[in-house]
Amino acid sequence: MISWNRVTIIGVGLIGGSLGLALKAEGLARRVVGVGHRQVSLDQALARGAADEATLDPAAGAGVLATSPALFRGVMERIGPALAPGAIVIDVGSTKAGIVAALEPMVPEGRVFVGCHPIAGSEQRGIEHARADLFQGASCILTPTERTPPAALDRVGQTWRGVGARVRVLSPQEHDRLLAEVSHLVHLASASLVNVLDDNPQTVVGPGWIDTTRVASGDPALWRDILLSNATEVAAALGQYQRNLDAFRKALLDGDGGRIEGVLTEAKTRRDRLIESKESR
Amino acid sequence: MISWNRVTIIGVGLIGGSLGLALKAEGLARRVVGVGHRQVSLDQALARGAADEATLDPAAGAGVLATSPALFRGVMERIGPALAPGAIVIDVGSTKAGIVAALEPMVPEGRVFVGCHPIAGSEQRGIEHARADLFQGASCILTPTERTPPAALDRVGQTWRGVGARVRVLSPQEHDRLLAEVSHLVHLASASLVNVLDDNPQTVVGPGWIDTTRVASGDPALWRDILLSNATEVAAALGQYQRNLDAFRKALLDGDGGRIEGVLTEAKTRRDRLIESKESR
Repeated sequence: MISWNRVTIIGVGLIGGSLGLALKAEGLARRVVGVGHRQVSLDQALARGAADEATLDPAAGAGVLATSPALFRGVMERIGPALAPGAIVIDVGSTKAGIVAALEPMVPEGRVFVGCHPIAGSEQRGIEHARADLFQGASCILTPTERTPPAALDRVGQTWRGVGARVRVLSPQEHDRLLAEVSHLVHLASASLVNVLDDNPQTVVGPGWIDTTRVASGDPALWRDILLSNATEVAAALGQYQRNLDAFRKALLDGDGGRIEGVLTEAKTRRDRLIESKESR
Repeated sequence: MISWNRVTIIGVGLIGGSLGLALKAEGLARRVVGVGHRQVSLDQALARGAADEATLDPAAGAGVLATSPALFRGVMERIGPALAPGAIVIDVGSTKAGIVAALEPMVPEGRVFVGCHPIAGSEQRGIEHARADLFQGASCILTPTERTPPAALDRVGQTWRGVGARVRVLSPQEHDRLLAEVSHLVHLASASLVNVLDDNPQTVVGPGWIDTTRVASGDPALWRDILLSNATEVAAALGQYQRNLDAFRKALLDGDGGRIEGVLTEAKTRRDRLIESKESR
């Protein structure tokens, strides 16, 4: 059993709070310190048992950056000098190349930074939605660099496995390319789909629309930052998507039923296979 | 309480089977006759209590067309002459203008056709997924014409309300324009999003992708027919979607965070309001 004497979680919202709950539930951390900038969230984190102690000041120890990525650099400037030898800092940001390039050099000699992205959560935010099983069955991508000591990578991986995640290792660049396709593009496509509607009071939405657009209810400022931080890869994925839509439009206007069915069959086959391989993993 | 002596449901799959279960559960039909072209589905419908009797031959009585829309005309040719005076035939197809224009004239004098579209169900098909509460809270759109007797429309509406649906009345054309935006475009957008992925074995999908693409696992032949039967309206909605994506792409490449956040906020606001108004209805 991997265990940590002290895990400091900076930002005890949906992800940070869930990680605190999971670490405690699995006995993976002797002490979880929650750090936030609103006392009310910290009080909730304490009340829910997501942290054993709480402070408004980033504290020393193994650190998890679970706050807004826009704050990562400022937080690292403050916690860097206080990190104990051997301490490991991870982040849980949704893009990796920029974050890893910015934060890794800020960690002092003898301390380690490991980029992480647990693909979990939903359009919800905040400690009130945190749950100990949020990472059960979720994928978590670790993005080491040539500077990452294998032992630290291994320890971080075992901790994510300990809270139920399936760990994958990719380079920060591979991560960003992949996530552009399965997450960032999906978000902008979903929001753009909602915006096709005018404000017709007759509009009726069913379960298909509700699921397809669920992510569009996510936090706009958070997603603005994610999309901008991975703009090149997102634009490339969007380009492919626009070409797919152009071809579909042509088939539709040509009344080409064979081609339409072919595209729909390709999508169904690919999706069913991905879901199946995810479930059997 | 509206009650029917006999309801004949032609096609006892997800929708037809659920309607049979719901009519029986609510005591709205004395007798439900299930009609299908595969004995195994009929046996399942009987075993689940979705029908009291089953036959491979379309029978007389009030009829519900819940089979593939491609078969509607052929079925109407067979059942039309056998319909008792006063009988009402409804369909549950996903597009309405073409279906209503084709079927209404086929109903003999003294019998009535009412186009219906219960917006329920999922990517699943078949009697094995049928459930009595499928229509609870779902919207059901009725599409009368100037030939529809108000009393028949009212009776059909009360039956849908009796199984838990919220009834809306639109013209067949209004229905198709609205559904192009909230359903048909959504389907092709979702399938096209899945097809952005190549078959990279590293691909990891999370809950956002799974929800956004759920409808893409629907039946390709069924959706080919739906899209083709509403091609003009779907192409118009797709055109608006493509313009939205073009604008998003420009904002992304310009690094225009304000504009990106504006689009995401518009989508979130619109979606949250639609979900809220749906829930409070």
